[in-house]
Amino acid sequence: MRHESAMARALDMARRARGRTHPNPPVGAVVVGDDGTVLGEGATQPAGGDHAEVMALRAAGSHARGATLAVTLEPCNHYGHTPPCTEAILRAGISRVVAAIPDTNPGVRGGGFDYLRGQGVQVVTGVGARAASDLAQGHFKLTETGRPHVSAKWAVTADGKVAQPSGGGRITGDAAWRRVHAMRDAADAIITGVDSILVDDSRLTVRPPPVDGRQPLRVVLDSQARTPPSSRVVGHDGRSLILTTAAAPSLRVGQLKEAGAEVLICTPTAANRIDIDAALEALGELRLSSVLLEAGPTLTGAFLATGAVDSVAVFVAPWTMGDGLAASADVDALTARLLDRPRISRVGEDTLIEGDLRRYGPAVD
Amino acid sequence: MRHESAMARALDMARRARGRTHPNPPVGAVVVGDDGTVLGEGATQPAGGDHAEVMALRAAGSHARGATLAVTLEPCNHYGHTPPCTEAILRAGISRVVAAIPDTNPGVRGGGFDYLRGQGVQVVTGVGARAASDLAQGHFKLTETGRPHVSAKWAVTADGKVAQPSGGGRITGDAAWRRVHAMRDAADAIITGVDSILVDDSRLTVRPPPVDGRQPLRVVLDSQARTPPSSRVVGHDGRSLILTTAAAPSLRVGQLKEAGAEVLICTPTAANRIDIDAALEALGELRLSSVLLEAGPTLTGAFLATGAVDSVAVFVAPWTMGDGLAASADVDALTARLLDRPRISRVGEDTLIEGDLRRYGPAVD
Repeated sequence: MRHESAMARALDMARRARGRTHPNPPVGAVVVGDDGTVLGEGATQPAGGDHAEVMALRAAGSHARGATLAVTLEPCNHYGHTPPCTEAILRAGISRVVAAIPDTNPGVRGGGFDYLRGQGVQVVTGVGARAASDLAQGHFKLTETGRPHVSAKWAVTADGKVAQPSGGGRITGDAAWRRVHAMRDAADAIITGVDSILVDDSRLTVRPPPVDGRQPLRVVLDSQARTPPSSRVVGHDGRSLILTTAAAPSLRVGQLKEAGAEVLICTPTAANRIDIDAALEALGELRLSSVLLEAGPTLTGAFLATGAVDSVAVFVAPWTMGDGLAASADVDALTARLLDRPRISRVGEDTLIEGDLRRYGPAVD
Repeated sequence: MRHESAMARALDMARRARGRTHPNPPVGAVVVGDDGTVLGEGATQPAGGDHAEVMALRAAGSHARGATLAVTLEPCNHYGHTPPCTEAILRAGISRVVAAIPDTNPGVRGGGFDYLRGQGVQVVTGVGARAASDLAQGHFKLTETGRPHVSAKWAVTADGKVAQPSGGGRITGDAAWRRVHAMRDAADAIITGVDSILVDDSRLTVRPPPVDGRQPLRVVLDSQARTPPSSRVVGHDGRSLILTTAAAPSLRVGQLKEAGAEVLICTPTAANRIDIDAALEALGELRLSSVLLEAGPTLTGAFLATGAVDSVAVFVAPWTMGDGLAASADVDALTARLLDRPRISRVGEDTLIEGDLRRYGPAVD
């Protein structure tokens, strides 16, 4: 039980680091004494910074000797941007490591558990495994496939409509709005289509801004560079990236860059749209590990049809719209996909259904 | 607390009587002694039979003297098909009546509470009021408007689709299937459109059949009498009623009657469809008080647009379909309607959202 409560605290540290650690996974670590006293805790720092274990050990200082380290992911055993965490653990004199899940990422040449055991450290694994795996989905997807984990979010009325026929119109209540902003806060990037920008002029920022001021990268799929340079998504409140094609007029591309957007030319499809696979490859090359798709029915449908969605978060609002647009549209064929382990919760007056279409990393249940 | 537990038992009796009491409301009654012992209980009998109070008093016999009667609706104080329940209560020597809600129905010339108080019976009201009001919605709607209460049920995937583009295809799981059959069991009638019959050949029966063998009336809105006489909805497993128009070929009408269906000619709309208001008037004249709409997107949309839906029950299944039909369609204008007091529950792997669009009877909260 003591292990569980230490892990709960480590998971909480990791959760707060989401969106701030790529290309590293958001990891949390806690050093606890034999009587359960918390001696130090920490989370992975922004790219290039220290890992969670090092932060927690540093906070614990000399108290770490003989103590237990709870950590949400297997400690790394290799030299990357930082020295191996396993060495820091041994040096600090930790006698027991409680870890949630192994790191199956071949790129980090694992073996952290084996190495620690060989050096006489007791290693307990599997505590909090499912929650830790949820947090590391982006890390595992990126290392396994070179692409970010894609979570698609939408909101429907009870009769399955996402917008009025002309587009727009708010679906969900205040509590759901806050939850969406927490989802944005936890994402490395938000993806949308140019049509959403043209219809809603969405900002796609986290509001109110988080205390550290960090905003997710905003990515607009925009094959013809139709995003108005005056859009709220461009040049304000953080970075934005327009993914376009060589078919976009260079004048408009130039205006977007001048307004502060980054622009990346992507491979088009035969129909001269942004190729979703190519777009995700490009985002993977930027080492983005977790992106939130907040798009209209056409782009959401295309992502679903392409198999590019890894998990979904659907808000269902307690009203019926009648006429209106359904959540996914313009899909040529049925693309039925079952949500794994759906999680249902009430968010204010709305219902939130979350579930996975695909899992990465070690099997945890 | 003793009143609450007696009322819970009375409500349970009432619930089991749903679908079996029209034109009377499903009412439950329990006689309890001072120590909380249940001395007798009962529910409203099928049309023309005794009311719940009389059933419970009869079961209690002479033990009713000095005891408490808990009943889900104000006892009637008038001669209808049966003598007034107030007289039976006095004759039995009941000293206290605990009732959930008053009967606001002007047609029964209320006054039950006043009369009992005047005769020295202690009357406690408001216990279990919300649940009792839910049970009596059909009664109140029918007496207030002459039409049955309409509950619309549908099932959507997480992307808001109710069927594949060609129609059909199962959306929800086994637990939801059982719940739908319980909803049918509690309804006086099931309404659908001829298209659903043509596509799915739905039986619209309660399965497995209830112990008393009672099946709801199945009503098909079918302006041209296109229901095949060989349909499973006709002539098997209970009564069926085809609502059609004078434009329907008399040959087909004759074949349907021969196959065992009842047929009623309704007023058509300008476009020669069944007029929903006229259909509900006709069902109200049959003294049906509570009907369940299980229809495709077009008819469901038309009911919503007409304002003919009083409550909805929406199952949301944990998968995305991609292409497919949304829950409501062919609605000319937005017909946004907020669900009052949405109730969200998990039914197997599916989520059920229930809520009211309109309430009848006394205000209860």
